[in-house]
Amino acid sequence: MSAWETWLAEQAATREAAGLTRRLRPRAADDPAVDLAGNDYLGLARDPGVRRAAADAALAWGAGASASRLVTGTLGIHDELERELADYLGQPAALVLSTGYHANLAVVTALADRGTRVLSDAHIHASLVDAVRLSRARLTVVPHSDVDAVRAGLVAAAADGERTIVLAESVYSVLGDAAPLVELAELCAEHDALLVVDEAHGLGVHGPGLVATLGLAGLPHVVVTATLSKSLGAQGGAVLGSPALREHLVNRARPFIFDTGLAPAPTAGALAALRALRARPELGTTVRARVAELADVLGVAAPAGAVLSVPMSSPQAAVAAQAAALGAGLRVGCFRPPSVPDGISRLRITASAGVPDDDWARAVATLAALVKEHQ
Amino acid sequence: MSAWETWLAEQAATREAAGLTRRLRPRAADDPAVDLAGNDYLGLARDPGVRRAAADAALAWGAGASASRLVTGTLGIHDELERELADYLGQPAALVLSTGYHANLAVVTALADRGTRVLSDAHIHASLVDAVRLSRARLTVVPHSDVDAVRAGLVAAAADGERTIVLAESVYSVLGDAAPLVELAELCAEHDALLVVDEAHGLGVHGPGLVATLGLAGLPHVVVTATLSKSLGAQGGAVLGSPALREHLVNRARPFIFDTGLAPAPTAGALAALRALRARPELGTTVRARVAELADVLGVAAPAGAVLSVPMSSPQAAVAAQAAALGAGLRVGCFRPPSVPDGISRLRITASAGVPDDDWARAVATLAALVKEHQ
Ligand SMILES: Cc1ncc(COP(=O)(O)O)c(C=O)c1O
Ligand SMILES: Cc1ncc(COP(=O)(O)O)c(C=O)c1O
Repeated sequence: MSAWETWLAEQAATREAAGLTRRLRPRAADDPAVDLAGNDYLGLARDPGVRRAAADAALAWGAGASASRLVTGTLGIHDELERELADYLGQPAALVLSTGYHANLAVVTALADRGTRVLSDAHIHASLVDAVRLSRARLTVVPHSDVDAVRAGLVAAAADGERTIVLAESVYSVLGDAAPLVELAELCAEHDALLVVDEAHGLGVHGPGLVATLGLAGLPHVVVTATLSKSLGAQGGAVLGSPALREHLVNRARPFIFDTGLAPAPTAGALAALRALRARPELGTTVRARVAELADVLGVAAPAGAVLSVPMSSPQAAVAAQAAALGAGLRVGCFRPPSVPDGISRLRITASAGVPDDDWARAVATLAALVKEHQ
Repeated sequence: MSAWETWLAEQAATREAAGLTRRLRPRAADDPAVDLAGNDYLGLARDPGVRRAAADAALAWGAGASASRLVTGTLGIHDELERELADYLGQPAALVLSTGYHANLAVVTALADRGTRVLSDAHIHASLVDAVRLSRARLTVVPHSDVDAVRAGLVAAAADGERTIVLAESVYSVLGDAAPLVELAELCAEHDALLVVDEAHGLGVHGPGLVATLGLAGLPHVVVTATLSKSLGAQGGAVLGSPALREHLVNRARPFIFDTGLAPAPTAGALAALRALRARPELGTTVRARVAELADVLGVAAPAGAVLSVPMSSPQAAVAAQAAALGAGLRVGCFRPPSVPDGISRLRITASAGVPDDDWARAVATLAALVKEHQ
């Protein structure tokens, strides 16, 4: 065996011994299980109008954008989506990229370099962690949602004359809690820093997102990133902010420049979902009510987002509960190390507005019994 | 103005002064210009069967995959596409990711760390440059296609006891030349190193790619990455290699784990394009004949890929020629710093098999006159 084959085998054996090997399980288009594991928070990925719009775009434009956005890969529907996203989120401009991951890589690497200080929340998403690493900025990880620690970091950075970026998620992906955005925005204004807020889990569940809801949209020192792959039910990401920021990204962000434009179908799907979301504000109301109901029944605190985290005693207990749920026709998520920030395994249950009422009622009853048994 | 606004304005002014500001120009679905700028090398992005397959998948599966591949985001059609890609490229296993960029980030960051040596060709694509940076591997950039330099690097790495990866593109994106893959694979076998070959511009134009054509597919020390966004006309990327490599990526590659699965429409579009490519080998023959014809007419060397690079005297001359071509109904590409490895601005002309015969004949005549005038 070569050195590389030996190394791969060793890595696999270590994973296997720790019970942490993960395998992919393809699902069918007509999968009968109720999906309480995904990020289709409003049920728009499978909304008939959204599907139809995605399909029509594939027919009209083709299966792909065929080139970088800078060459011939910018489609009229990219432009339309950018205008409507910016309008809904209350931002002057938007730029669409092919994944939310790309959006985060793009904004951080185009703004930060060795001369930049980044103050990053301890619970920040992997894509932002990677973005900072790629940018080579000087990183300070601040304890989760600790406003005093951010202030101290800003004071230190100002003393060093560094341009500074603060990274937060509006609703954090693992624990589902909301960031102290008003305080962070105030601190950033005071210390001439830029606040970058990832609305991946805030957009849709809270209408135009928490930045907009809290009246922070359009402030020149608050930049937003978003995914088109969760509440908007498609694929892709976006960066929202000033026209100057957008132009900078177009010219400098490598994950934008050296990547094929987002395919027509997910572009049009996200646009149709955005319009549906604006036309049907009750979708957000439903998902928030459902997550509160489920939290109550399971005896855990209600999150700010659509996903409930239920701590389990071990990775094995989490896996067993997940299997039992599937036996009862419910797909729930299960997060184990290394995908969790604190080593605690969790069931993750999405309270999507897309689940029919009777399925939802049955799911709540089933989960109440099942979590008690395995916890 | 804040520090960040000032900085953005300065950056914009520098770009503007150098004549390097780039702006996006959205195109319409019924754009009448002949596309000689994109990467739809075989014309499959707009093939009726491929469009139909993409549209049908959006209708059947929804606009998005709705979750990470590790949660509920692995679709039956991902599985199908992975099997057929592996089969066609002569590899034991494949893993599909949401962009080619993600595929390159994934394979390098999951394999390399501070203890790894990466020998990277000087012309390697931005996504692989970023991948190496993100991995924190020790990087040696070797002069373009310099086999002796790779050998020297491998000897030095072996002396240091480092696990080593060599990075190449089968057909390089900027100059369109082919890598010395047979020599590189031999050297890697000899020195217990891994060769990672990006087939972004080889797949389709050379059937299953140069790795397969040269008889290197399936060797355990040769890993392939591919895009689904060029000859396969859709969006996404893939890593091809051993089942052990695939399992490692599923468990360790952050750009795979922490990203939503590829949307149904581009997945199915790529699958339909793959089948079309296998059924119609004349597509590859046509694109290779066209690029040779155009090279001959323009008096430049024929590339190994589908894209002809025509050196121009300045960024301004390249832009002027591009504008003249558009005036004649032809969209051609124009690469200027910082997208070129050597500072030379170029027209980039794609000899796609998807252009109708009479449009192609007209394009060749027009370009011959136009390049002479502006060069
Ligand atoms: C907070 C956060 N940001 C970004 C992403 C990446 O988005 P995408 O899946 O669209 O690449 C995710 C999850 O996928 C996320 O949870
Ligand atoms: C050599 C090479 N690798 C990877 C990529 C990235 O692929 P994608 O556009 O699918 O992200 C590209 C171009 O886009 C490329 O030219």
